[in-house]
Amino acid sequence: MTIKDARTPASVQDDKSEEAGKSIGWHKAYVEGSRPDLRVPVRQVHLTNGQSVTLYDTSGPYTDPLADTDVRRGLPPLRENWIIGRGDTEEYAGRPVRPEDDGIKHTSPRGGLRNLDAVFPGRPRQPRRSRDGGAVTQLAYARRGEITPEMEYVAIRENVSPEVVREEIAAGRAVLPANVNHPEIEPMIIGKRFLVKVNANIGNSAVTSSIEEEVEKMTWATRWGADTVMDLSTGRNIHTTREWVLRNSPVPIGTVPLYQALEKVDGRAEELTWEIYKDTVIEQAEQGVDYMTVHAGVRLPYVPLTANRKTGIVSRGGSIMAAWCLAHHKESFLYENFEELCEILAAYDVTYSLGDGLRPGSIADANDEAQFAELRTLGELNRIAKRFNVQTMIEGPGHVPMHKIKENIDLQQEICDEAPFYTLGPLTTDVAPAYDHITSGIGAAMIAWWGTAMLCYVTPKEHLGLPNRDDVKTGVITYKIAAHAADLAKGHPGVQEWDDALSDARFEFRWEDQFNLALDPDTAREFHDETLPAEPAKTAHFCSMCGPKFCSMKISQDIRREHGGSREEIEEGMAQKSKEFAAAGNRVYLPMAD
Amino acid sequence: MTIKDARTPASVQDDKSEEAGKSIGWHKAYVEGSRPDLRVPVRQVHLTNGQSVTLYDTSGPYTDPLADTDVRRGLPPLRENWIIGRGDTEEYAGRPVRPEDDGIKHTSPRGGLRNLDAVFPGRPRQPRRSRDGGAVTQLAYARRGEITPEMEYVAIRENVSPEVVREEIAAGRAVLPANVNHPEIEPMIIGKRFLVKVNANIGNSAVTSSIEEEVEKMTWATRWGADTVMDLSTGRNIHTTREWVLRNSPVPIGTVPLYQALEKVDGRAEELTWEIYKDTVIEQAEQGVDYMTVHAGVRLPYVPLTANRKTGIVSRGGSIMAAWCLAHHKESFLYENFEELCEILAAYDVTYSLGDGLRPGSIADANDEAQFAELRTLGELNRIAKRFNVQTMIEGPGHVPMHKIKENIDLQQEICDEAPFYTLGPLTTDVAPAYDHITSGIGAAMIAWWGTAMLCYVTPKEHLGLPNRDDVKTGVITYKIAAHAADLAKGHPGVQEWDDALSDARFEFRWEDQFNLALDPDTAREFHDETLPAEPAKTAHFCSMCGPKFCSMKISQDIRREHGGSREEIEEGMAQKSKEFAAAGNRVYLPMAD
Repeated sequence: MTIKDARTPASVQDDKSEEAGKSIGWHKAYVEGSRPDLRVPVRQVHLTNGQSVTLYDTSGPYTDPLADTDVRRGLPPLRENWIIGRGDTEEYAGRPVRPEDDGIKHTSPRGGLRNLDAVFPGRPRQPRRSRDGGAVTQLAYARRGEITPEMEYVAIRENVSPEVVREEIAAGRAVLPANVNHPEIEPMIIGKRFLVKVNANIGNSAVTSSIEEEVEKMTWATRWGADTVMDLSTGRNIHTTREWVLRNSPVPIGTVPLYQALEKVDGRAEELTWEIYKDTVIEQAEQGVDYMTVHAGVRLPYVPLTANRKTGIVSRGGSIMAAWCLAHHKESFLYENFEELCEILAAYDVTYSLGDGLRPGSIADANDEAQFAELRTLGELNRIAKRFNVQTMIEGPGHVPMHKIKENIDLQQEICDEAPFYTLGPLTTDVAPAYDHITSGIGAAMIAWWGTAMLCYVTPKEHLGLPNRDDVKTGVITYKIAAHAADLAKGHPGVQEWDDALSDARFEFRWEDQFNLALDPDTAREFHDETLPAEPAKTAHFCSMCGPKFCSMKISQDIRREHGGSREEIEEGMAQKSKEFAAAGNRVYLPMAD
Repeated sequence: MTIKDARTPASVQDDKSEEAGKSIGWHKAYVEGSRPDLRVPVRQVHLTNGQSVTLYDTSGPYTDPLADTDVRRGLPPLRENWIIGRGDTEEYAGRPVRPEDDGIKHTSPRGGLRNLDAVFPGRPRQPRRSRDGGAVTQLAYARRGEITPEMEYVAIRENVSPEVVREEIAAGRAVLPANVNHPEIEPMIIGKRFLVKVNANIGNSAVTSSIEEEVEKMTWATRWGADTVMDLSTGRNIHTTREWVLRNSPVPIGTVPLYQALEKVDGRAEELTWEIYKDTVIEQAEQGVDYMTVHAGVRLPYVPLTANRKTGIVSRGGSIMAAWCLAHHKESFLYENFEELCEILAAYDVTYSLGDGLRPGSIADANDEAQFAELRTLGELNRIAKRFNVQTMIEGPGHVPMHKIKENIDLQQEICDEAPFYTLGPLTTDVAPAYDHITSGIGAAMIAWWGTAMLCYVTPKEHLGLPNRDDVKTGVITYKIAAHAADLAKGHPGVQEWDDALSDARFEFRWEDQFNLALDPDTAREFHDETLPAEPAKTAHFCSMCGPKFCSMKISQDIRREHGGSREEIEEGMAQKSKEFAAAGNRVYLPMAD
């Protein structure tokens, strides 16, 4: 495959590359597929030894100095021709946007949007859906044996054959979230035979945050490696915020429609109806939401199972549905109307993320009756969704001690016919608020190694507040570590090349290469310079940790130089060479200026 | 057992408690043992619901408002009477301290200490050692069936019987590092049947850092939970820095004598001799070093095994010994003189930490021939050490991908007769410099769950520079999380009570209790206040994450209130109560001021 350079050398120093995290040393490139409009972005890291390393890139056009991006216009509709080309969808008038969609009620004293400027100015567009009401999903195509451009795109990204991608999607072991109304995305795939993915949550709440912040958080999260982003907004301007996020997002966007539906009934769970919920799902499907969390597994008979829990129901959606079920003493309207919901999602290719509304919220509640009762229902719903050709993944916990993690993935894979598992953490202890990216990063790495396909990040603010820009970055980096550690443990082909390249750079004291290969080049460089800021230190054969005398790698290199490189050379050479070595004064370190 | 309060209520607000991490809400207390001078410190957290939680405390007298501490005087010699009482040791003139001990050579233009003030002013003391040259080790006592005050002390700390402590030490499955010349320590135990421990490394290098900084780092590390501290200083004032650290440390101190020995020969590895090394070990044993890393497993025949490695030898000690072996083409003088070394350590009760000089420094080198060849030699040396009644633990890697971690602990336990394993991380990927506390925290939690007794922390500066105060705190907290997660997974008795107490506080919106129970109360409170600073928010039944409408825990509580607490009540009550519930307007959230 040929890699096209996205910039002229001159542009390396421009402020876009500056923006892109001091990207001197790496740049955006594209791998061309079977058609000119199929160009897969990669991150090319150029090493000082002339070699280069190609890394997966989620940052979208924003890191391409040649791309002319404008958040007020939105990203170019990369997939538009592919979608139209299939000829199975059509534009239509669509559902009129109402003030309530943004949580504005005539009763509200404030009224109106916080600022009119918030309305997305980008090009007018009509929503698109299935022409004949049939499924226009990647699952339907895969089952028909079709390899779509989206499938070829992810095959190139994952370095596998397009047929493997088609097979995994057809078998329901992988999903390719791609709403026909979200042509802007760069396709990606979620499944245990592919690279472990990371989701970052954003979203304003009634208490804090603004539209601008959310769009900024989304692009920021993808820059550091988020593979998908969930907009969990619950405050005002919920429709408009989502529009801005969708039009500017290079990655699939997920939502929990129940949150917006609840806003429409003023937060009174018992006033929720199937009609209001359905209307909200259609509203979001028309906007282009790629996957939706649906808590249809929280059934009336399961609610009492949470009564003796230490932390009850900790999923927002789960608690709302439980309250509804009890208020009406009726079975969940999501469970009752699940088949109709499937028909809607199939018409836009919205992927299900079947929510674990009864996930444990504390170590004490892990793997309990309520959690596994819901999981069995999710398995049942997964089979129904597949009948309607709706792509489906299953959400998982939560708070789980290490020795109870494996049971979660094993049970889910068995009960849900190997549908992709999408877990939050799990957090392996409850005692470290402010460090839950770490308590959960531990569990995330383990459960991903054992087969979880996507990890929902947790930021340092979990349990305490809404994440800011720094928290989002910390959460994403922590989860990229967990995902990559899992890819290594799974022996995913080619994955270790990244570690090897960085370790070679480390052993050869190519500091700039170490920085540029790091998951976070900026911070790595900054930490090094804190103690040894001078340029020469960037080529020094030691660092401030050990100083020159104690640099073990320096000593190792001297040994090789003195005694030959290979094991055999060293063995045979050791004896006679030891004398000359001694004579040569064999210093094992660079003398210090003293 | 009775718990004595360490302060009068009045003193809670004093600046000591301020220092102690905003400790309003918790205070230092002591559990009394069988004798008045046996008082085990604990951290008592007082909850707003009147209950209290008792936590393990490593912070020493510094967090006791009643203790009058002065770093220039040093800590009180807590164990002095116990040591003297055994009557098997005697004071003696000891080895005269020489300028070389601080790395000062007549040849040095600078000469002298950086500042005379650096010489530790505390009370003059003579070193102590075995009266008849026999072993005065906790291992010897345990094998004789004696339960020492130190053993009773750790039994209270670990909430087990003193006999269990004696048995584990006698069997060599646990060590209680306690040099007769370090009477200041609060005894602690390292073994798989006890709580997982965390070591924090400090130490200046030729390039940076000062004595004052090191003492401050030591007390800072223990405040956040470090169970032992290793002084890895390699620069000047190495002897004096260690004296300050030892006299002020409430936790066992470990060192790598080879570092100081190398300084004494100007960093020329080939000039090292057994005599210089031995002299250095005695110098440090007389000062009171509790455990020493000895790289006696790096044997001449193993050096060639590292030739084809990606990152060669990454242990400082390992590379120095390898260079020595090759320079002289001789077997390691540490291996050759190991029995004599055992006699010395036995006379002071210095514990061996048999170093893994050939540990892998990259994912590519994990579990290779060189690493496991050395491990087999460590098993052989462990048996020799036990013959001399020297307490022994074994050091482990390093960089290891998740799927290769378990083999490390399993092999070590088998080869080393279940001697305590003491591992660095392991790091589960090489690609995240600046985040290696996280890449390694993942591996640390797993290997501890599987039986590792102590974890050597890794800070965010690993591979990049020397840790500062913040890095030390981040490293310790990250490793306390790994250790506690492992204790939970091992089902260590009573451990989950901490998680349960915090989860109860979380579910009941007792924010202050959540903060005070947190591993890092300061940061938890700070993060919460970033978005909801007002005092009322500390009792609010929601936080800025979800806002009032979406607080799942609030909804769960409403469900319980409306439908009764227990599962049975809810089941039977659901039907008829649902009507009233509806009638009552069953709002599932606190109405917002809107």
